[in-house]
Amino acid sequence: MKIPVVSNVLEESDALAKKNRATFDVHNLFVVNIMSSPGAGKTTLLVRTIAELKQKGYRCAVIEGDITSTIDSERFSPLEISVVQANTAPFGGDCHVGSHLVHAALQMLPLAELDFIFIENIGNLVCPAEFYLGEHKKVVVLSLPEGEDKPMKYPLMFRECQLCLVSKTDLLPFLDTDIATLRRNLDLVNGDLEVIEISAKVGIGLENWLSWLVNGKSAQHLAISQNKSNAGITSTS
Amino acid sequence: MKIPVVSNVLEESDALAKKNRATFDVHNLFVVNIMSSPGAGKTTLLVRTIAELKQKGYRCAVIEGDITSTIDSERFSPLEISVVQANTAPFGGDCHVGSHLVHAALQMLPLAELDFIFIENIGNLVCPAEFYLGEHKKVVVLSLPEGEDKPMKYPLMFRECQLCLVSKTDLLPFLDTDIATLRRNLDLVNGDLEVIEISAKVGIGLENWLSWLVNGKSAQHLAISQNKSNAGITSTS
Repeated sequence: MKIPVVSNVLEESDALAKKNRATFDVHNLFVVNIMSSPGAGKTTLLVRTIAELKQKGYRCAVIEGDITSTIDSERFSPLEISVVQANTAPFGGDCHVGSHLVHAALQMLPLAELDFIFIENIGNLVCPAEFYLGEHKKVVVLSLPEGEDKPMKYPLMFRECQLCLVSKTDLLPFLDTDIATLRRNLDLVNGDLEVIEISAKVGIGLENWLSWLVNGKSAQHLAISQNKSNAGITSTS
Repeated sequence: MKIPVVSNVLEESDALAKKNRATFDVHNLFVVNIMSSPGAGKTTLLVRTIAELKQKGYRCAVIEGDITSTIDSERFSPLEISVVQANTAPFGGDCHVGSHLVHAALQMLPLAELDFIFIENIGNLVCPAEFYLGEHKKVVVLSLPEGEDKPMKYPLMFRECQLCLVSKTDLLPFLDTDIATLRRNLDLVNGDLEVIEISAKVGIGLENWLSWLVNGKSAQHLAISQNKSNAGITSTS
């Protein structure tokens, strides 16, 4: 008698993420997974970011994660880029984008004609931190109105990310949030976390963020070239 | 051969929630489950709410849900009330407060000496909506900086709640959020949802919210008395 066993869902998820990563690297894509609480300003930031990258000659696409609706995807329409809406409602309303959704979305994107893919995750500071999707970098957007204690209360998210964009800094004069305390808390939770203060609305910090993206893409490209070249040396020695 | 079967976790959760509810009703407690995104202002609002209720002669306690830390619990210390910190990190870092945590917290509260218990859920607009804890009412706090599209993007939360507190309304002049659109979206998702605009910082809407709580408690008390009296009639007829 054979008893069916529920397999390790996380292992399957990771295996698919690795496949996604291989696809990204074959096409020299730089892929960023953007996470935050609901309403921290991910979409507004991405619309502005992609407009600026387009002006610099880079080609971008978005995988737009939501439980339901296409509200956010529609906001990209003036940019005339490829956007795939990844809704989790048909999969039980998952609270995060899974590697299977990214895998499915990749089949619908013109990968050979792209430089960047942005995965806009579901607004949630907890669950998305637990899942690797194949991305090169994880970025958390923390909006100033959320307060300076969030890194201590949701530490996994801030430990998993390489960059924190502190957003909506134009609201600083009207809030009690203290940026110095926030930066200290971020450093306590993850000493390696880079931090950029940003306001997509008034344009603060955008150049730093764009440089981070472009430099990240170059470094990734270099790493892949070196890997290939090392592999070549090994195979002929 | 007996094969162990993983039982219906949701069923177990509901059974424990019903036990919690029975305990609340025996002690004439009015229990409110407060949910929101991270940083929407639940704790600031609760500190102010409980101070006001205390002045009116009501006795309150808080079950403070967090993944980790006691940061929020400590903010209640000037009020000298009973607070139980319910952390999910020892249970795998759950993204919501479960009925088992509420059940455990109840063992540590002086139930006979209370009028209200506030369950401050983990900051998350997705998962906490799925779990009944035994509470009499579910309230969602939606802060103005989060934008007016949240009801469409996280519909379950707004469908499950009886009241939406639109918070941080003091920031209105500095935001692009349109309250009329937000109210229309709330109504589209849940036509029965009550809405109160509030700012704990400057005191807008507090009296409406306090009346909602006090009236809710009276109505609950009346419903229980009528049930008891009806049960009495049935048993003697």
